[in-house]
Parts: sequence; structure tokens; C-alpha cells
Amino acid sequence: MSVPSEEHLPLYRQLADHYQQAVAQGALPPGARMPSVRELMQRHGVSLSTALQALRTLEEQGSVQARPRVGYFVQDHRVHLLGHSSEPDPRCPVQQIDGAQFAGINERISLWLEQGRRAQVRVDLGAAMPAPELFDHLTLNRIGAALLREFPDVLVLGNSRPGTHPLFQAAMARQALEVGVSVAPQEVMATLGNSDAVNLALAAVTERGDVVAVESPTFYGVLQAVETQNLRALEIPSSSRTGISLEALELAVQNEPRLRAVVVVPHLQMPNGALMPDSHKERLVAFCRRHDLALIEDDIYRELVDAPVLQRPLKAWDETGQVIYCVSFNKTLAPGLRQGWMNGGRWHERIQILKFARTRNMQVWAQLLAARTVGTPAHERHLRRFRGALRLQRERSVQMVARHFPQGTRLSVPPGGLSLWIELPAGVSSMVLFEQALALGIRVAPGPIFSNSGRYEGFLRLSCGLPFSPEVEWAYGELGRLLHGQVRALPAQRQAA
Amino acid sequence: MSVPSEEHLPLYRQLADHYQQAVAQGALPPGARMPSVRELMQRHGVSLSTALQALRTLEEQGSVQARPRVGYFVQDHRVHLLGHSSEPDPRCPVQQIDGAQFAGINERISLWLEQGRRAQVRVDLGAAMPAPELFDHLTLNRIGAALLREFPDVLVLGNSRPGTHPLFQAAMARQALEVGVSVAPQEVMATLGNSDAVNLALAAVTERGDVVAVESPTFYGVLQAVETQNLRALEIPSSSRTGISLEALELAVQNEPRLRAVVVVPHLQMPNGALMPDSHKERLVAFCRRHDLALIEDDIYRELVDAPVLQRPLKAWDETGQVIYCVSFNKTLAPGLRQGWMNGGRWHERIQILKFARTRNMQVWAQLLAARTVGTPAHERHLRRFRGALRLQRERSVQMVARHFPQGTRLSVPPGGLSLWIELPAGVSSMVLFEQALALGIRVAPGPIFSNSGRYEGFLRLSCGLPFSPEVEWAYGELGRLLHGQVRALPAQRQAA
Repeated sequence: MSVPSEEHLPLYRQLADHYQQAVAQGALPPGARMPSVRELMQRHGVSLSTALQALRTLEEQGSVQARPRVGYFVQDHRVHLLGHSSEPDPRCPVQQIDGAQFAGINERISLWLEQGRRAQVRVDLGAAMPAPELFDHLTLNRIGAALLREFPDVLVLGNSRPGTHPLFQAAMARQALEVGVSVAPQEVMATLGNSDAVNLALAAVTERGDVVAVESPTFYGVLQAVETQNLRALEIPSSSRTGISLEALELAVQNEPRLRAVVVVPHLQMPNGALMPDSHKERLVAFCRRHDLALIEDDIYRELVDAPVLQRPLKAWDETGQVIYCVSFNKTLAPGLRQGWMNGGRWHERIQILKFARTRNMQVWAQLLAARTVGTPAHERHLRRFRGALRLQRERSVQMVARHFPQGTRLSVPPGGLSLWIELPAGVSSMVLFEQALALGIRVAPGPIFSNSGRYEGFLRLSCGLPFSPEVEWAYGELGRLLHGQVRALPAQRQAA
Repeated sequence: MSVPSEEHLPLYRQLADHYQQAVAQGALPPGARMPSVRELMQRHGVSLSTALQALRTLEEQGSVQARPRVGYFVQDHRVHLLGHSSEPDPRCPVQQIDGAQFAGINERISLWLEQGRRAQVRVDLGAAMPAPELFDHLTLNRIGAALLREFPDVLVLGNSRPGTHPLFQAAMARQALEVGVSVAPQEVMATLGNSDAVNLALAAVTERGDVVAVESPTFYGVLQAVETQNLRALEIPSSSRTGISLEALELAVQNEPRLRAVVVVPHLQMPNGALMPDSHKERLVAFCRRHDLALIEDDIYRELVDAPVLQRPLKAWDETGQVIYCVSFNKTLAPGLRQGWMNGGRWHERIQILKFARTRNMQVWAQLLAARTVGTPAHERHLRRFRGALRLQRERSVQMVARHFPQGTRLSVPPGGLSLWIELPAGVSSMVLFEQALALGIRVAPGPIFSNSGRYEGFLRLSCGLPFSPEVEWAYGELGRLLHGQVRALPAQRQAA
């Protein structure tokens, strides 16, 4: 059979992966008809049940859609009025490191945040944060109060060294195992969310002046961490279909002797929404092992993928401790809890030392709350409802963008998550839009904060965290009006081009 | 009058300060009779009520003791069987910076912690942490649960930028004002305890390779922070009576062009227990302003001073933002809450940026819990009971040391706090004691972890955090037995010396 053999994977998963990759790479374009069950059986020499299971897996992943009595079709995540986002050239030469670009990302972010704070924000489409009403606060509060009765001295016990509670460690290790990540409980270390973890990981594997490969575009928090630690970020093109470009990484390794680490968000890359295919994950882990690069995996959005159980973290392929695995419950369980955890792979001990030097022990109550919640049927129900609500909000957002934004706007609808990454018509500036919208009380995230290089002025991140309301609809209308105004003000030849 | 005039201070405070300093400097030795009320009136030209108030102030501070119908006497904190700790020469040349000594403190601390973890510890006299039963966990748990009802979305709200809640800011600013520290509420920043704060302060004011003046001996966490940030610690002698030596700091400034910051614990210095007199504080702040050094004040133990209200932080003398003020509730309210705060003085904005880059927002529930508790009559009652219990435990500890430890053991009883800093007889090693005691299930803190230079092998820190029990008494007996064993094994000429 033509499916590349992967050990440990059942046949139907191998088959599903094969077609998921074909879809991701565009070999099977959106709307295309999938091979029938009979065709799959003949072409790959598999049984009826394997072929059926593969198609159902693809359907759960959101890659294909069943049309009853007709067959399976590749899911069309694009709204027809919108063009698909342009893809970076994965083989384009890696951007040269330029000292000047590494100064100022913190100032830029701070300015953006500060402007947002000072303004009277009526509709916040800038923060990639789910609205509080999407979480199960009643259950959380009930468990939180129960824990205070059950562990009456949890707030006054001081010697919980090394700071991570065994119950939390056990629960996290058990959860990780369900997606193929095998971590010893005692090697689970509690963190203050994910930024803490990524910062510690960078501190453990680099020295001042070292180079860190980041995705481009990337979450601005990574750029802040790199800058505040006096490191240099090398921006590697990231496709909204498959994530970071391995070809560009190859070039980077050849040209950058001080390259030490790669930071990626493999599931629902922030901001472009990419979902890295399994084959790509396997190659990336092997690549980092071969070149002795620390692979820092920020797995904060996996549970927001429409079919998260089928997504295995990079860490699942890690046999040598090359992957530093970072998880947070900030986006899925309780943003106000500030609870995350990490496993530092072969740097775990050094990371523990750094963590202790920086912030000593972590609060135990929050760990117990996470341990008591994660993995329960109630939490699984919450996650299903939560993903459903976010899916609806994403779809509504896409409709609003299609209705209100000017011709030439392009986007790829991500298979889950909290936000849309939108490419504006040529010549239109998201920075101008940011300023104009803020004056109306609408906050957005302009593209330039997702890069050190000032790239992405033509891009915009919109949060889909807010449930739709007349005010949110009004905000999309106003954004559209402002964008149309920018298009009209463009020089004529620019518009024609 | 001979009292140096200090503006803003009432006359009786000036008078009390004058005598407190005389006591601290040894001009009035322990047990000496204070001038009578009449003598004070004549000598300083003050009224009866001013003289009386000054004596009462000194009594509240624990500097003098009233003997009814006899007069006031300088408090004798020493137990008569024990000698007073030797004082460092404040004018001794500052230790030369030696690269080798800056490697390894984290490894040494980690080893110490790890050995403590692996052993079956029956009695922990190593951690300077109050026993959980000394805290008011019932009140904390009640308020904690009430807050979950009152702020039902506190665990699921994500956008509390910049991470510090206004109610927390207001409560902390109000508390600070009571001890003379004027901080705008919006310039109160929540931290994960005090290590977080000191780390952020160091990161904000230094560059790699810069020099930081620390007290010697000092809390090992400071040395860990300095090492993990690739800075160099310069150890400045610290007296157990008056704290850091200004004379040695003067020398350091002259010889060390890369000196950027000074880290001090002005109240109950860890480990030597010093309480810095007001005049010393004023000089230190002026000194740092003159030489443009950041003065990082770790004010974690102030409320454990037997008369804490009279202790004004260094920050109270800071008119130019030279002092970075760090507070934690780890030792006074709830060790398991992990809540602290800081004001970064003129570096506050940079510190906020660093904090956001490292750990984003802080948990709000813990902030509300601290804000709701601190400053209430119930909390003041807790603190009074707490200080009383600690005082009793310190006194018992001193008695046990006097009873069991070999001749030649010396210590200064600190005017508050959690621990004793004990000088062992010449030739006796606290590292040897640590290993031997651990084998019996007794954990102590050996002197060498309080310095980069391997100094203080002849010193020992014992925690007084544990209420006395037969097991604690047993532990003191065993420590004494082990120390006597070491003394007996010393070469004869050493014992004679």
C-alpha cells in the first residue's frame, strides 16, 4: 500500500493521516470528492471497517464532510466570498538577522496594550481570550471551595517543595498519556501559565546573544520573552496549513551557528491557526534531535482543536528529551487560575533550579483545582460545549468579515481556536485600522505585533472569543467601514493593481 | 540639644531613635541603666511627657525594659550562658570579586534541598517557615470561599491587565502609608511572593556581568537570583545589630565601576536578624541616591519585628524613586497563597514590562484574599498572637541552645522573626552537622548556603517556626550531642585556642 508505514499507529489512523496530509498540502483541494469506501479498500488493500474508520476519523478531525448518500468531500473552510490567505514560500531564504529589529518589541507591545487600556473599549476583538461566560465557573467555584474544606491548611502550608503537588503531577501525567505523551509524574513542574514555561525553557537552553527560531507570524509573547532575555529571534515562515517550514529551518541551521532552540505552537498556531500534520511533527522532532536544538512546544490550544483527542503533541515523538513541553489551562479551563505545567525533557533539572531561583514554590490550591477538574466527565462536557460555542463564533465572525470587509480580504478558517488571521487588501494597514477603531471603542490586534520585522502590517488578528451580540455585530460593521475608507483613499494605480 | 534634628519626626521619636542607636552601637550595652526621666529632661531640654513617651517607645521597640520603681534598662537579648555573636569589621576591605565563587550557589542550594527531600525528615529546623498551625487558616478559608461567591467569575476572567487588581492595589497602598511609604495605588504590582520581585528588580536594573552588593551573610535566594541572571554578587559585611556596613559599601563603590544595585533586608535581616536603625536607613538611601545605585528593599519580615509599627521601610526615606520596594505575605499571612507586591520606583515601568513578558497576569483570587485580610482588626489580632508565639519559640530555642550546645557557641537573639543565627565553637563545621543530623531525621540550614564564598561554615541557622514538642526538644538534644562530638574530635591545640 502507498501509505507510509508508521509504527504504533493502527492502519485506519495511517490511512486517515495520509489523506489529512493530502488535504493540508492541497493535493485534495477544498470541496473535492474523497475516494469512496470501495475505492479506498481497493487502492490501499484495507478492509471495509478500516476504510470506514479512516473516513470517520477524517470527519471528526474536520478534514472531510459526509454528504449522506453522496459520499465524503474535503471540508471547505473558506467562505466563498473570501480568498484563501496567501502562503509563505517555504523555501524562501530565511530572513537575515538584523540587530535593529530586535529592539523594541516589548515597547511596541506595551504601547499597544497601554493604548488599549487607556481607551474606552466597548468591544474587545484584540485579546485572544474566551468570554468568561463560556467557562464553567459554577463547577470551578464549587470545587475550589470544597478543596478549602478538604485541605484546610492548603493556604498556610509553606513547604511544598519543589512546588508542584503530587496530586497535580499524577493528574497531568495521566492526561498527557492519553495523547501519547509519556512523562513521569515527578517530572511534571507547575508553572504560572505558559509564558512562565516558555521563558524558563529559553533561559535553560540559551545564553545571551543566542538565536531562537520562531514562527512567522508568531505570538508576540514569544518575541517579548526572546527580547527580555537578550536573545535574537529568527523568523521562520509558518504556513497556515502545516506550520513552521522545515525547509527554512534547514537553511537556518546551515547559516546560524548560534541557533539553539525552536519555539512552535503545533496545534492552532497563534496567530495563523495552522495544525501541524503528524508527518510534519515527526520530521520536526527528528530534525531538532539531529541538530541538537531544543524544541520548545507550546501546546496551549490543543484542546480547542475541533477534534483534539486525535492530535498528538510533538512530545509524543520525543525519545531523547529534545522536546520541552509546555501546557496551560488559561484558554480551556480557567483564565483566572494562572495554572500551567511543563516538562523540560533533558533540561528538566536545570529548569527546576531556574524556577526555584525565580519564584520559589507555586500555589498549591490552584494545582489541586486543576487536578480535580481536568479529565473528569464534567470537564469533557465543558470542553465539547466550549468548542461548539467557539466554532459557532468563528463561523459568525467569518460571515461578518465576508459581509463587511472590502474585496481582496483573504483568510483561512482555522480548524478550531479563538481567532482569525485576516489578510487585508493590498495597501491597507492594520495599524491605521487599530488607531481608528480604538477611537470608536473597538480593540483589534494589528499584524505588526506578531513579528519583530514590521511585517504583517497587511494582516489583522480578530478574536472570536466573544459571543455574538448587536454590539459585536456593530463592531464588525464599523471595522468594515473603516477598511473601505482606507481602500478608497489608496492611490488609483494601487487599487487597480 | 544633642539629638540630631530630623525633620518630620516628633521630638520623642528623635529622642528614642537617638538612644536606640546608642544601644545598637553598643554605647549603651545590654543590661545598662537608661538615664532617668529627670536626666533625660535636663540633658536634652525636653518636657516630662516627651521624655516619658521616648522611654515608652523604646520599651515597645524592645530596646529597653522597665523595672517597676527602679528604672529603665537596656534589654538583654543574650542568654547569659551564650556569648554574643562576633561582629564583622565594618571597615574591612570588601572581598575581592573572584569569578570562581559565582559558580555553583544554585547547585549547592539544590543539593541541600535535594538531600533534605530525600531524607526522612522528622524535625525540620532548616526552613525559615512558621508552622501552619500558627496561621489563621479558618479565617482565610472562609474569606477565600466567600470571595468565590462574591466574585463568581474571578477564576474565569482573563483580561485583568496589567495583572494587578485595583482592590489589591488600594489595600496595599493604604497599608504602606501606615509605615510612612507613599505609593500610588496604580504603582502597586502583584508578584508571586518576594523572590519574583527581587528577580524582576535585578533584571530591570542590571546587565549581564554587572555587580550587585548583597549582605554577608545573606538569604541564599538572593545569591540564586544573582547567579541565574549572570550577575556577580559582592558580599558586604552585615552586622547583626545594624545591618549592612555603609563603610564597606563606600569602598565597594570606589573599587567596582560595575556596581549597580544593593539588596538588603532592613528588618530582621536573613539570617543574622539585624534591625537597621532609622539613621542608618536614611544614610543608606542617601548613599544609593548619590551613587545612582538601585536599592532593592526586601521587606518580608517587618511584621515579625516585636514592635513592627515603629519600623519604617527604607522606602519611607525615598524621594527620588531609588528604592525598589518588595513585600510578601508568605511569612505573615499565608505561605500557600504565594502573594506579594512591589513598587519599582523609577524602574517601575520597565519592571511591569518584564513581569508581563515573563508571567503575564497574576491570579486575582489570591490578591483579593490578601486585600480583604490585611489591615483588618482580625488580621492585626492574628499578627499579635503570631509574634507572641514566635517570641516564645525563639526564647525556648535559645534556652535549648544554651542547655545543649557546647561551650563557645555564640548568638545574638534577634528582636523578632523566625530563626536564630548561631556561631559554633571554633573548628566546628555546620556542614558536618547538617549531614549527621539529616541521618537522624533532623534538617538544619548550614552557614555556607548564605554566602558564595564558602564562609560561615562555622555558623548555623535554626528555624524557630515549629511549636515546641518533645520531638523538637529531642532534636535540640541530638544537635547538641553531635556538636559535642565534633568538639571532642578537634585537635587538642584547636580546643585550647
